[in-house]
Amino acid sequence: MLGKLYETQVCSAARTLEIVGERWSLLIVRNAMFAGMTRFTEFQRSLGIAPNILTKRLTEFVEAGLFEQRPGPVYALTAKGRELQPIILALTAWGDRWAAPDGPPVTYEHAGCGGEVVVEAACERCGERPPPPGVTAQVAGWARRRQDARPVS
Amino acid sequence: MLGKLYETQVCSAARTLEIVGERWSLLIVRNAMFAGMTRFTEFQRSLGIAPNILTKRLTEFVEAGLFEQRPGPVYALTAKGRELQPIILALTAWGDRWAAPDGPPVTYEHAGCGGEVVVEAACERCGERPPPPGVTAQVAGWARRRQDARPVS
Repeated sequence: MLGKLYETQVCSAARTLEIVGERWSLLIVRNAMFAGMTRFTEFQRSLGIAPNILTKRLTEFVEAGLFEQRPGPVYALTAKGRELQPIILALTAWGDRWAAPDGPPVTYEHAGCGGEVVVEAACERCGERPPPPGVTAQVAGWARRRQDARPVS
Repeated sequence: MLGKLYETQVCSAARTLEIVGERWSLLIVRNAMFAGMTRFTEFQRSLGIAPNILTKRLTEFVEAGLFEQRPGPVYALTAKGRELQPIILALTAWGDRWAAPDGPPVTYEHAGCGGEVVVEAACERCGERPPPPGVTAQVAGWARRRQDARPVS
């Protein structure tokens, strides 16, 4: 957990990264979420991560409420942890497109119908799926309307 | 850039984190994307990041093709960089829900209609928006069907 590293940043993305932005964090969550892993040794073997780092991550995740520690010990994802799923799917989608020359190594399926699950940005009002330049941030402080910005490509 | 840190992980999320998983990386991209920042001094002032770290990040981003360096110098997001947007929106959504006791500090708007832009996981086949346990990973190796896993909550 990065803790208060991004304290000056008025932004929920920064807050999230403070909780899950350390090395290995999201891959531990991924393995719990999609491979059903719950035990220290499972995470350790699958990731090849140093035991002291894994201990630190799991302890912080329990403190942050992403996992519950149960007798065993078993580390079980909570609702708060499970809701990190769209982040993992979005990271996967970008990697599939830009860093997977041999094609997507993992796909995500809807357990109900077998269809592929994808993450998309959509407008709640009109349903459109705007390309990145069609989305603007609204906030006091650092952000301003994207269309007022200097052209950036 | 984390480089080959997650080399053993057959997973596009790991590949993406190798490129943008270092501290400050996604916040630099966020400021370029939503605040229109293009210059070293803008990133430096807005983030309060050490100049040597920022130099390293921007150089690596140019090498990775996320930004183009143009005379000025100006750092301009490329299509590859802009497509990180759903990741930033997903990080924001989770932080809004779990780490923003005073409510969302930033909202994202559809420039076309002013509606709120949200990121959601949806099934391409049936259109349903499955809750996290309704999504399974399909891959040789570490993953298995989520429903076969030990209950994790």
